[in-house]
Amino acid sequence: MGLKMNDIIPHILTAHRGPFYELEKHILDNRVKIEAWFREAWLQYPPILTSSVDLRNSGFKISPVDTNLFPAGFNNLNPEFYPLCIQAAQSILYELYPHCLRILIIPENHTRNPHYYQSVATLANIVQNAGYEVKIGSMLAHDSPIEIKFDSAESIYLHPLQKKDNTLVCGDFVPCLILLNNDLSEGIPEILQDISQPIEPPARLGWSHRSKAHHFMLYKEICKEFSDLIGIDMWHIFPLFYDCGEIDFIQKDGIECMMQKTEELLNQIQLKYNEYNIEHKPFVMVKADAGTYGMAVMSIRSPEELSSLNRKQRMSMSVAKGGRSVNRVIIQEGVYTFETIGKDQHVAEPVVYMLGQHVVGGFYRVHQSRRFDENLNAPGMHFEMLAFAECCNIPDNRDNSHQHQHQFYVYSVIARLALLASCKERNSIK
Amino acid sequence: MGLKMNDIIPHILTAHRGPFYELEKHILDNRVKIEAWFREAWLQYPPILTSSVDLRNSGFKISPVDTNLFPAGFNNLNPEFYPLCIQAAQSILYELYPHCLRILIIPENHTRNPHYYQSVATLANIVQNAGYEVKIGSMLAHDSPIEIKFDSAESIYLHPLQKKDNTLVCGDFVPCLILLNNDLSEGIPEILQDISQPIEPPARLGWSHRSKAHHFMLYKEICKEFSDLIGIDMWHIFPLFYDCGEIDFIQKDGIECMMQKTEELLNQIQLKYNEYNIEHKPFVMVKADAGTYGMAVMSIRSPEELSSLNRKQRMSMSVAKGGRSVNRVIIQEGVYTFETIGKDQHVAEPVVYMLGQHVVGGFYRVHQSRRFDENLNAPGMHFEMLAFAECCNIPDNRDNSHQHQHQFYVYSVIARLALLASCKERNSIK
Repeated sequence: MGLKMNDIIPHILTAHRGPFYELEKHILDNRVKIEAWFREAWLQYPPILTSSVDLRNSGFKISPVDTNLFPAGFNNLNPEFYPLCIQAAQSILYELYPHCLRILIIPENHTRNPHYYQSVATLANIVQNAGYEVKIGSMLAHDSPIEIKFDSAESIYLHPLQKKDNTLVCGDFVPCLILLNNDLSEGIPEILQDISQPIEPPARLGWSHRSKAHHFMLYKEICKEFSDLIGIDMWHIFPLFYDCGEIDFIQKDGIECMMQKTEELLNQIQLKYNEYNIEHKPFVMVKADAGTYGMAVMSIRSPEELSSLNRKQRMSMSVAKGGRSVNRVIIQEGVYTFETIGKDQHVAEPVVYMLGQHVVGGFYRVHQSRRFDENLNAPGMHFEMLAFAECCNIPDNRDNSHQHQHQFYVYSVIARLALLASCKERNSIK
Repeated sequence: MGLKMNDIIPHILTAHRGPFYELEKHILDNRVKIEAWFREAWLQYPPILTSSVDLRNSGFKISPVDTNLFPAGFNNLNPEFYPLCIQAAQSILYELYPHCLRILIIPENHTRNPHYYQSVATLANIVQNAGYEVKIGSMLAHDSPIEIKFDSAESIYLHPLQKKDNTLVCGDFVPCLILLNNDLSEGIPEILQDISQPIEPPARLGWSHRSKAHHFMLYKEICKEFSDLIGIDMWHIFPLFYDCGEIDFIQKDGIECMMQKTEELLNQIQLKYNEYNIEHKPFVMVKADAGTYGMAVMSIRSPEELSSLNRKQRMSMSVAKGGRSVNRVIIQEGVYTFETIGKDQHVAEPVVYMLGQHVVGGFYRVHQSRRFDENLNAPGMHFEMLAFAECCNIPDNRDNSHQHQHQFYVYSVIARLALLASCKERNSIK
């Protein structure tokens, strides 16, 4: 494998192993039922082409905290699993667009981050190896292609886009499908409106249209059905939340209501902690309802913290990606991250990647200074990426020492539940 | 990777590298076209669930010599690619039988070979991990399950089959799908006739119904279309052959006709060798038209060899697997195997495995004493199996030193052409 297994599989802190293994065992024991249930679900809600899900794993609870449909980070996946990525891309593209030949990838505009372009290059490479002609077109390039160098040896070209009679083209390259890797936080630009080619994932699933409250409401419905299926308390996989509605942090409008809901939520979490004898202090996360990139996120342990926010904190909560102002907020149960890595016990958060319904890998965000109850995906934060050393689809490797494969399988189940919520979002967002 | 790359990738003898690399380059350059062509082909001829293809690679020519739809040898695949196998099984089963829950595997009856049961166990494991309930049912087990031990630690159970009102069951296990891993050389048994569940691959594609001449006739049509697509002489991928019709080796009926066709075929091969400046002696393979397991196969360099066969040789040619007598024979262009391995240059023949249209791996049959022009799959022969060290679906790994990935991709193309011929067989065999 090249990598040493014990170095790269985060270890659940011993004190919290019990309940997680119970949940894990339950999920493993019901594997056939779960997979059959997912198959029926995908028939009803066709899977979205690309996604990644940030998970938090406290041992007693494992749950998604963010579902990204335009993921970066493909370059952080384990290169040993590229064949799996290629096969997954072949399989889902054949299923959704059997006659497709040429694919145009549209990346983010906002970034000059070389890591992001490495991710775009990896995604392009996967799709190309799946047997498609691929170009990267950008809303940044106007007259001529822009070369982006992200490595001493490698670069990609961003080609200018044109719209000709409702067909999006790149010079003489006429794509059959637009693979969107831009979360359109600032709305759907004119050039992507009313075009004849399909866009995947759909432009209306950009953050200008999505709502976290809506996503987690759909996720809740799914968790209810799933928990009934395998007979667990859905709280083990579902983070409680309140939709706070309109908030103006600058003018302090709505802060009182938010404090009240925070108190209610902290009480509800405490009741659950009591039920399962969990001796930790509940906390909640306050998030912009349409936020991404870990911007406009706060960890809160008491309602009073909200009333005593200083101007700087309120300013930082009121601006999300692209400078948009935050006016809707959700308060969500905070899930401790008790996965740690290495002898220094750095906190690690798994991120799971999917192409269609196929889980193709993932990595851990490992941070050296953050606490168990903090958001690890924060702007400007430096974190390491550690690729999952193994695949997520071999739950019962015959070698019982490979317990982490069980853990990866559990991740793959929770990540797919979150994906399913987004597939339902597609149906309800017009 | 655990294995050292140079040890396990057979090396094409230098003298023969040129023309193969030209073919390889041509196939790689047309990759997108080829993959698009395959996608359209699978829409028209849905892929068969399981298959393996034996290839021969002479440098100037690479071609299939046998297409097996009920393959053994899953245990010889590289365990690092099990995730790829699992994902391929998920993908093809979801595509063909979206509502399937329970799968019954029916293995061969004839064998007590522990390696064969290891292959069955591996196949069962792949399907189970793909998310299905799996049982192995056998026509050998009558009243109670038979335990087959094939390892100090591992064993499988063969369960008795019953037919209840046209439904095949195993006790209270009612499969949705029968996964046949028995080539039914002796015909379709009553218990598999007129049952309500689908059988995959179909029972009518057993060797009691198939014909090599028919397979290679369909393969020829496919090669013609494929060669036109990418602009190559189809001879580089197609072995010339004659269908000899009825032959009785014991009574020597039909031998003269066979000698005549052998001479014609040797002349045709010589013309091709002249055209491409190949300085080897042509040879042909005489094969039972419905043969398998490398039985009833002879390598012939002149028509006279056929008239001077001794009784023992004629006897061995007249009996195929399961003791069936051989009465139809094909004569096929012999393809040299110039892939060798290790410092002793042992001859190696690739075998490629597929689940549906997905190439999931393969291995080399390596033999220590056989010559370049002999059949390496012969009964009683001892050969080593060396798993492919890499996947077949990454043709353009950015590291150019990984030339063998190109080679594996070329294998995957030729193997899929042979699979496509079998998919056409399914339509024409009733």
